[in-house]
Amino acid sequence: MKVARAESIEAQAVDMQGAKDCTVRWLVGEVDGAPTFAMRQFDVAPGGHTPRHSHPYEHEIYVLEGDGVAYEGDKARPLTKGDVIFVEPDEVHQFENTGDAVMKFLCLIPNSAAGKQVTVAPECGIDPRGE
Amino acid sequence: MKVARAESIEAQAVDMQGAKDCTVRWLVGEVDGAPTFAMRQFDVAPGGHTPRHSHPYEHEIYVLEGDGVAYEGDKARPLTKGDVIFVEPDEVHQFENTGDAVMKFLCLIPNSAAGKQVTVAPECGIDPRGE
Repeated sequence: MKVARAESIEAQAVDMQGAKDCTVRWLVGEVDGAPTFAMRQFDVAPGGHTPRHSHPYEHEIYVLEGDGVAYEGDKARPLTKGDVIFVEPDEVHQFENTGDAVMKFLCLIPNSAAGKQVTVAPECGIDPRGE
Repeated sequence: MKVARAESIEAQAVDMQGAKDCTVRWLVGEVDGAPTFAMRQFDVAPGGHTPRHSHPYEHEIYVLEGDGVAYEGDKARPLTKGDVIFVEPDEVHQFENTGDAVMKFLCLIPNSAAGKQVTVAPECGIDPRGE
């Protein structure tokens, strides 16, 4: 059994094309012996976002802190603490922090995601604050 | 894409042998089209606990609120908000709320858990409060 403080695990910058001001911590993964899926924590600074993209595997997400939007294609859906999100394989998606504090969420993926194709999508041009 | 308030999803009593005062919400699962793993939220009342058992599949857990202990076999390990836990397949484990408020945690399992054998373990007789 592994028991750890999530925030004691190293946060790495997400340097994927289209990402801005976000980090990822691998809380549980294959390195721990996890046989099927991995739990990561993303921290997104105010104004930051994850890449707008799609891939042939799912996400299961839980919002721990903060406020933002989930883009379902071009549709912005508000997010806050306590929201759960399921992104189907091949759905175009992106998460943006529209609040004043860090937005934190868990994002789980199957181990089979490793090495799979990720397709970057064009920015949708929506201002989630309506400005 | 599914976006929902976790606490708007129905909480069902956990009626498995050895469970006390806990409920489960299936936040994301096969019913949503999740192909690989399921996200559940457990709420455990003060003094309540999950069953003491083992099974041939893993858990990936994140503590959302409250205080308690994780039993790793007979060893009690303290838990609080922001802790992450990986339970390996076949490890004997149990989670108990030793605090004064509801303990809430996410617990994810592979879809392949369905129908797998669960083995109830004898209670370890430890008082996590040391009384």
